[in-house]
Amino acid sequence: MRISCNKEELQRGVNIVSKAVSKKTSMKILECILIDASSDKIKLTGNDMELGIKTIIEGDIEDTGSIALDAKFLGDIIRTLPANSEITIDSDKNYTTYITCENSQFKLSGLPSDEFTNLPVIEKDKYIEISSLTLKEMIRQTIFSISTLDNNKIMTGELLEINNDVIRLVSLDGHRISIRNTNINSSEINKKLIIPGKTLNEISKILSGDTEEIISIYFDNNHVIFEFEDTLVVSRLIEGEYFNIDQMLSNDYETKLVINKRQFMNSIDRSMIYLTESDKKPLILSINDTEMDLMMRTTKGEFKENIEVNKEGKDILIGFNPKFLKDALSVIDDEDITIYMMNAKAPCFIKDENTYTYLILPVNFNVNSF
Amino acid sequence: MRISCNKEELQRGVNIVSKAVSKKTSMKILECILIDASSDKIKLTGNDMELGIKTIIEGDIEDTGSIALDAKFLGDIIRTLPANSEITIDSDKNYTTYITCENSQFKLSGLPSDEFTNLPVIEKDKYIEISSLTLKEMIRQTIFSISTLDNNKIMTGELLEINNDVIRLVSLDGHRISIRNTNINSSEINKKLIIPGKTLNEISKILSGDTEEIISIYFDNNHVIFEFEDTLVVSRLIEGEYFNIDQMLSNDYETKLVINKRQFMNSIDRSMIYLTESDKKPLILSINDTEMDLMMRTTKGEFKENIEVNKEGKDILIGFNPKFLKDALSVIDDEDITIYMMNAKAPCFIKDENTYTYLILPVNFNVNSF
Repeated sequence: MRISCNKEELQRGVNIVSKAVSKKTSMKILECILIDASSDKIKLTGNDMELGIKTIIEGDIEDTGSIALDAKFLGDIIRTLPANSEITIDSDKNYTTYITCENSQFKLSGLPSDEFTNLPVIEKDKYIEISSLTLKEMIRQTIFSISTLDNNKIMTGELLEINNDVIRLVSLDGHRISIRNTNINSSEINKKLIIPGKTLNEISKILSGDTEEIISIYFDNNHVIFEFEDTLVVSRLIEGEYFNIDQMLSNDYETKLVINKRQFMNSIDRSMIYLTESDKKPLILSINDTEMDLMMRTTKGEFKENIEVNKEGKDILIGFNPKFLKDALSVIDDEDITIYMMNAKAPCFIKDENTYTYLILPVNFNVNSF
Repeated sequence: MRISCNKEELQRGVNIVSKAVSKKTSMKILECILIDASSDKIKLTGNDMELGIKTIIEGDIEDTGSIALDAKFLGDIIRTLPANSEITIDSDKNYTTYITCENSQFKLSGLPSDEFTNLPVIEKDKYIEISSLTLKEMIRQTIFSISTLDNNKIMTGELLEINNDVIRLVSLDGHRISIRNTNINSSEINKKLIIPGKTLNEISKILSGDTEEIISIYFDNNHVIFEFEDTLVVSRLIEGEYFNIDQMLSNDYETKLVINKRQFMNSIDRSMIYLTESDKKPLILSINDTEMDLMMRTTKGEFKENIEVNKEGKDILIGFNPKFLKDALSVIDDEDITIYMMNAKAPCFIKDENTYTYLILPVNFNVNSF
């Protein structure tokens, strides 16, 4: 195989597919990128057996063929080569590969392409379409509340629920639920997919965030495919039944609070100063009329602050893990947010009309100490 | 004690003196900043017993007094308070301290100021003056080659050698020596100080790099003081006799090479791609006429490159640790550099007329393998 491409184009492709390459593994081939120039296009593929990414890059094929090259070395070599230069990759039948560019030459050993596991193929009869921007936003606004603990596999993924012309992306970790809805073109599909958090994280990095770019999402019972213009992302799905989210949601409330998001976030930041891994205390909110007192009491010190709020309904004294409030507020783009509360034991909901819902469980605390 | 200051002014002061506060220690007082408002100025001090920094900040003293407060909490509290706000620090006789700002209040426990170790006082009869920019540059251009290993204490510091109207800053680690000279106003001082690397690193962060700002450097046999307009940095000196640098230097050479610095650095970067902690190989330079071949051979792969050079004298084949070449080139601002070499066993010198000298020892290698 002998191909040549522009540095930036090769770098773009390698960066994309590297997201599906294993960093540490005992199988050398899983650390490789497959360069396939056996037909009329140059295709790069990374595949860690759970997530696979294939992309097409521009370039000239001088001799057809294919080779698997160490992703780290390939990425580093390209990175250090001069901007706008032409890079040639030349592999012989012993898989010895020369990467040359101007006066530089790198020699490295490749692996035969037949050791590389091809991406799974699925039928493309069922699919939905969504803009790159919307998908990127939906992931950003929910991914923070997946569980990172492996003891409940389902919680390490997100639920993508397709309901004809509405889809929602849901994550939860046992203390909170994040939901982001959007409308799509009528799809006549009713389907629930549990997509690994890692897949969504990596896709999010590839998504341009362009409203014009449309992503097609295909799936069967085991895999989901995200198809971009020149790039294909294939991921295993997580097996199992997701939690029944709807039965955890409620529209009832006793206290409704409208509050400036930026101001509330800054106050929460201040309340967290004394917290350490070993000394976690709740942030107590005491809401009376048009005021909210924030209070934090730790062995290291105390914090209190008073901010104005717009309240409807009952006064309330309630405690939260401030990090959970902060995480949700960080991803909301609205200037003011609305919080719905029932009582000090029931979950609160931060939500708008249609787009997002963040459920956060309150924390018990000793009322007498406040 | 009760003082109030503008947020940014307090933050500036706390950031400066925090550089001399211990991060992890079993003595609570070493993690504190002393706020001393017992006279007509507000003085902040950090002191980890090796390095001490004192600075004066603007503000109002409502009640005179002093208190030592945890540096991390103080820094975090100030950071999270609103921009351009007025911050009040109020300590009672039990050292309970309230930091208030707008609607926020933090309570924390301070320590009595008499637990805090005052900075050492030294006579100010001997001193030199140097601009902030020059000092900052001298540190940047030498600090990288101090030793980080504690087994030879002297190598963890830098030699500041004052020779009437010339000073030089020297670092070495057993494989290389970095020297940066500058002229100062005639001082009639001949003195060698060994200043801890940590001190120089921290000072470098405080230095504005302004050519107009003049730093005075005072010293006795045990301490050195860097005096800025409102800030004083006191450091212990490292005891002992520094290496005799001059006997390691030489102006003889058999090969003189002029080379574009940027191009050489880029080539060195490329040569380092295959290197790992466990597989360190030399970069071989083969210089013939107007060309230089760079070669790197590792178990993972090989690299070679050919670049144009301007050579005087003999051809040479010599090997270097590429990191040492890269470190020196990274801090030189010249477009072209000159390298002087004697033979494959003798140190090379990268130097200009008067300002800098970088000595680098070559590495042995098996000539037959190239």
